Amino acid sequence: MRAEVRAVDGVPRLSEGDELGSYLPHDADVVAVASTAVSKVEGRVRPLDGFEPSERAESLAERNDADPRFTEAVLNESTELLIEEPFFLAVTRFGHVAPNAGIDRSNVEGDGNVVLLPEDPGESAGRIADTIGTPVVVTDTCGRAFRRGQTGVAVGWACIDAVRDWRGEEDLHGHELKATEEAVVDEIAGFANAAMGEGGGGTPAVAFYGVEAIVGSADDDTVFRREEDDIVRSALLDFKP
Amino acid sequence: MRAEVRAVDGVPRLSEGDELGSYLPHDADVVAVASTAVSKVEGRVRPLDGFEPSERAESLAERNDADPRFTEAVLNESTELLIEEPFFLAVTRFGHVAPNAGIDRSNVEGDGNVVLLPEDPGESAGRIADTIGTPVVVTDTCGRAFRRGQTGVAVGWACIDAVRDWRGEEDLHGHELKATEEAVVDEIAGFANAAMGEGGGGTPAVAFYGVEAIVGSADDDTVFRREEDDIVRSALLDFKP
Ligand SMILES: Nc1nc2c(ncn2[C@@H]2O[C@H](COP(=O)(O)OP(=O)(O)O)[C@@H](O)[C@H]2O)c(=O)[nH]1
Ligand SMILES: Nc1nc2c(ncn2[C@@H]2O[C@H](COP(=O)(O)OP(=O)(O)O)[C@@H](O)[C@H]2O)c(=O)[nH]1
Ligand SMILES: [Mn+2]
Ligand SMILES: [Mn+2]
Ligand SMILES: [Mn+2]
Ligand SMILES: [Mn+2]
Repeated sequence: MRAEVRAVDGVPRLSEGDELGSYLPHDADVVAVASTAVSKVEGRVRPLDGFEPSERAESLAERNDADPRFTEAVLNESTELLIEEPFFLAVTRFGHVAPNAGIDRSNVEGDGNVVLLPEDPGESAGRIADTIGTPVVVTDTCGRAFRRGQTGVAVGWACIDAVRDWRGEEDLHGHELKATEEAVVDEIAGFANAAMGEGGGGTPAVAFYGVEAIVGSADDDTVFRREEDDIVRSALLDFKP
Repeated sequence: MRAEVRAVDGVPRLSEGDELGSYLPHDADVVAVASTAVSKVEGRVRPLDGFEPSERAESLAERNDADPRFTEAVLNESTELLIEEPFFLAVTRFGHVAPNAGIDRSNVEGDGNVVLLPEDPGESAGRIADTIGTPVVVTDTCGRAFRRGQTGVAVGWACIDAVRDWRGEEDLHGHELKATEEAVVDEIAGFANAAMGEGGGGTPAVAFYGVEAIVGSADDDTVFRREEDDIVRSALLDFKP
């Protein structure tokens, strides 16, 4: 593989209703787009004051020294908290596990606003892919278990395999492979995240060229683990710190 | 950022004592190398028959329908098991959390052999970096919590920041950033892993050009979370399935 990876320049500050696709190239093999940018054009920037804290939010906020309105936003966006203290690890309505349900306070106008993740990032990816005619991965910067630091992960994707299936292929010595499932969309999202940066770079999209081989046949699969397959999730729900 | 990412061709089947650096470019900003390749030249390919199962290995193997010799290898390479069943999630001697302590049965000659991870992948990365004069990341394909599929992660690195520190920098709107730590070596390892593939591609190294900005000042940091900061680890150790 010989790939070229270019941060997309020339994207303005985005607001609700902007046509994101009009700033993106049409000739890449995959385009990664920051969820923050998608959320902005989809009207998912919200004033904190719009969240009326429930009793549960008040009590969680107190235990975590958090803003009760922010806590309410996290509860609103999630189906379940896997960790309630000392931070919120939430399962979002679309099945992604993320601290604070992926709600951000950076790269949004005003002190009193938050950016929610897109309501259905897979659908968002599909819409953008339709507009530009190439596969799309919607990314977010996200923490993880066991390892320090955050990395870019895929929260939505379209026209690309989420997971590359290596079953049946052979290794260097002609044996069948044991490692069978590679989460290609996360590997793309991670490097795209590094190219975007976290700050005022103003580059919410990254175009990948020369990566046809990893795009695959766009099966309808996912990187979100099913609840019943996830031991770590069971352990967390069982755990009383 | 405008990066070029090239899988390195022309690497032969590697054996103990081979000079890995002699096959790698000297002009990249970062070179990622598969741990399997590093392990081979460092003599970390071992016959399964060399592992004499302890009582604990026999009992764990039985519970998991695993090979007792393989189980013994996993115990040997690790300081602790975070999950004992239905698979082994181990903390390696150098602090990395991985299924089976990262021990592989693919891309190694013979049916009765396994590839252990390098004993100290950070030291390996340093040695290769010295030889080729560029930053190095040693990668492995690894599973994770909450998300399906495996991705490439960094198990060792040299002459590059493991984590990029965004503290003090500003976002698009002049506010200080909240997201502060980006695990850049994992984002590089992930995309490198996609470029290498898992099979018989024979490309155990990937060169990155145009990524000076993310290499950083090579502080002495790590992506391995400290035990006392890791709630998920505590929950797993507490959990009786
Ligand atoms: N041009 C432009 N860039 C933006 C906008 N919002 C965010 N970005 C950029 O997108 C990249 C990722 O931003 P970030 O807040 O980390 O997004 P997230 O990872 O999806 O949460 C950074 O380079 C930001 O500067 C916007 O409205 N316009
Ligand atoms: N040329 C060459 N390639 C190898 C060798 N061993 C593994 N590879 C390649 O390195 C890449 C990664 O292999 P893999 O077994 O997945 O390594 P891991 O991810 O570190 O466990 C694949 O393209 C393999 O074909 C070797 O001895 N020589
Ligand atoms: Mn975010
Ligand atoms: Mn980000
Ligand atoms: Mn491996
Ligand atoms: Mn691999």
